[in-house]
Amino acid sequence: MINQLVKSIRAKEAPIVVGLDPNLNFVPEFIKTKAFKEAGETLEGAALAFKEYNKGIIDAVADLIPAVKPQIAMYEQLGIPGLEVFKWTCEYAQEKGLVVIGDIKRGDIGSTSEMYAVGHIGKTKIGANSIAAFNEDIVTVNPYLGSDGVLPFVKVCEAEKKGIFVLVKTSNPSSGEFQDRLIDGRALYELVAEKVNEWGASTIDPETGYSEVGAVVGATYPEQGKILRKLMPKAYILVPGYGAQGGKGADLVHFFNEDGLGAIVNSSRGIIAAYKQEAYAKCGEEGYAEASRLAVLDMKEDLKQALVK
Amino acid sequence: MINQLVKSIRAKEAPIVVGLDPNLNFVPEFIKTKAFKEAGETLEGAALAFKEYNKGIIDAVADLIPAVKPQIAMYEQLGIPGLEVFKWTCEYAQEKGLVVIGDIKRGDIGSTSEMYAVGHIGKTKIGANSIAAFNEDIVTVNPYLGSDGVLPFVKVCEAEKKGIFVLVKTSNPSSGEFQDRLIDGRALYELVAEKVNEWGASTIDPETGYSEVGAVVGATYPEQGKILRKLMPKAYILVPGYGAQGGKGADLVHFFNEDGLGAIVNSSRGIIAAYKQEAYAKCGEEGYAEASRLAVLDMKEDLKQALVK
Repeated sequence: MINQLVKSIRAKEAPIVVGLDPNLNFVPEFIKTKAFKEAGETLEGAALAFKEYNKGIIDAVADLIPAVKPQIAMYEQLGIPGLEVFKWTCEYAQEKGLVVIGDIKRGDIGSTSEMYAVGHIGKTKIGANSIAAFNEDIVTVNPYLGSDGVLPFVKVCEAEKKGIFVLVKTSNPSSGEFQDRLIDGRALYELVAEKVNEWGASTIDPETGYSEVGAVVGATYPEQGKILRKLMPKAYILVPGYGAQGGKGADLVHFFNEDGLGAIVNSSRGIIAAYKQEAYAKCGEEGYAEASRLAVLDMKEDLKQALVK
Repeated sequence: MINQLVKSIRAKEAPIVVGLDPNLNFVPEFIKTKAFKEAGETLEGAALAFKEYNKGIIDAVADLIPAVKPQIAMYEQLGIPGLEVFKWTCEYAQEKGLVVIGDIKRGDIGSTSEMYAVGHIGKTKIGANSIAAFNEDIVTVNPYLGSDGVLPFVKVCEAEKKGIFVLVKTSNPSSGEFQDRLIDGRALYELVAEKVNEWGASTIDPETGYSEVGAVVGATYPEQGKILRKLMPKAYILVPGYGAQGGKGADLVHFFNEDGLGAIVNSSRGIIAAYKQEAYAKCGEEGYAEASRLAVLDMKEDLKQALVK
C-alpha cells in the first residue's frame, strides 16, 4: 500500500491527506435539514447527514489529493448507522482512487489485535469464505501494549499489502505526559520509533524504499519531528495537527526526507469546515465543498512553499 | 457505576467478570450450522452464531456474576453485523442485571476521545435529542496520549455515573516493552497509576470509597499487581489474564484490598469455551452453557480459597 500511496503523492504533487472527521457542527444546515426531514433527529438522520457531507467533500477534492483519513470515533458516536457511513465513506473514497487511512488507533493483546487487524485491513474467515469487514487500506495503531499488540497488524500488512501508522508522538497538548518521559536518557517516543523500524523491517517496498509500517508524529512538535525523521528513515510519517491544531507549513519541513517524500500531512477541520473560515466565506454554506477544494489548493501551496525553502 | 458494581460483587460474592469474546472456534458446531443455514457463511451468519452463543452463556451465568466484558474487537471483525450483536449483547446482559464493561481500549486526542466517550458511555446530541449509541456501563481506555485523551471519558463518567478502567499494566507477554521502562527510577506503569488517581479524584463514590476511574492490571504480573494495589487505593482493578493466559487464583490475592474488595477478575476463554476443557467435557457441545456455569462456580471457589489464605 505504501507503494500506491507514494505514487499517488508524487502524481498529485500533494503530500496531503484530508481528515474526514464529520461533526454536526460542521455539516451545513441545508444538509442537516434534508437528512433530519428524511430520517429524523436520530442516529440514522445524523449518519445520513455525514454521508451527504462526506460525498460532497470527496467529490470536490478527490482529484487533488492521494488519501483521506476518516476518524472512526466520529462515526462510532452514531452507533451502527454511523459505522455504516464509515464503511460507505471508505468504499466511496476508494472508488474515487483515494487511499483510505482508517484512523482507528486500535491496539490490544495479540489475539485481540489480530481481530482488529483482520476486521479493518484483512479478511475474516467464515467457513469457506474470507470476507473484508471494513477494508481500509491503512490504519493507525496504538503501541502501548508493545510488540504483541502491533505485530498482528504487521502480519496482515504482509499478507494483504496494507499499511499501518503507529502512534509515536501525538499532536495533542498532553502527549508529552508519558511519550516525552526519559528512559535511559531518551524519550519514550524514541523507543517506540526504534520499534517502528524493527516492526517494519520485513515490509520495505523495494521500489520506494519505504516500509508498510509508518509512524504518527504531530505537526505541533516540529523539534521532535526532526529527531524522529532521522531515527526512522524508512517510515512514512503521518503528520496530524496542521491548521486547526496549530501546525504551520514551515514547521513541517523537517518531517520530510531529502527526496521530498517521507511524510503526509493531515488536515481535518481546516479543510472540511473551510466554509466557516473568513477566507472561504464567499463560498457560503451551499458551497462548502468548493471551499474545501480551495482550502486544499491553499494547503498544497503552503506546503510547496515550505518545502522549497 | 462503581457503586452498583461493588454492590453486585458483594451480593453475588463473586469478584468475577466473564469476558464475552466469541470466536468461531469456540462456538459449538450445532449453533454454527443453524446460523450458517439461516444466513450463510457470511458476516451476518457469523454474527448470528455469536448472538446465540452469547445468549446461552449469559442465561447460564447471569445469576452468579456481577458483570460481563464483551471485547469489541471480536465483533468488529464481523463489521456492521458484528457490531449489531455487540450492542445486542450489552443490552441483553443489562436486562439480566449485569454490569457491562465494554473492552474497547479507545483513546485519542481530546476532541476525538470525547466522541468515543459519548458514543460508548454517554449520549450523542442530535438536534433536540440525546441518544445513547452503544450504552455500555464502563469502558476500558488507553492512556498513551496522556490526560487529554482520558479526561473526556472522566467528564462523561461524572455526568452519566459511568466508569472507566485505564490500561496500566497489561496482561500480555510484551507489556513490559514500554510499560516497565524506568523513568526517574520508576516504571512507566507507576506513572500511569498516579495519573489514574488524579483522573479519578473527582469521582469517588462516597458509599464504597472507590473511584469511577479504575485500572487494568494483568493477573500475569502479580508482583506489579502488589505495587499497583498500594499505589491506587481507591481504584478498582480489572484483572485480565486469569486462566487461559496463565494467571492463577493464588496470584490474585495482592490485587485485592484488605476489605476483600478492589479487584474484579476476568476470565474469557476459560469460561466461554469451558466445554472444550477435559474437566467439563461431560457437558458436551450441546451443554456448552452449562459447562460455562460450572467453570464460573469453580473459578468462584478458586478465588475464595485464594482470598481466605
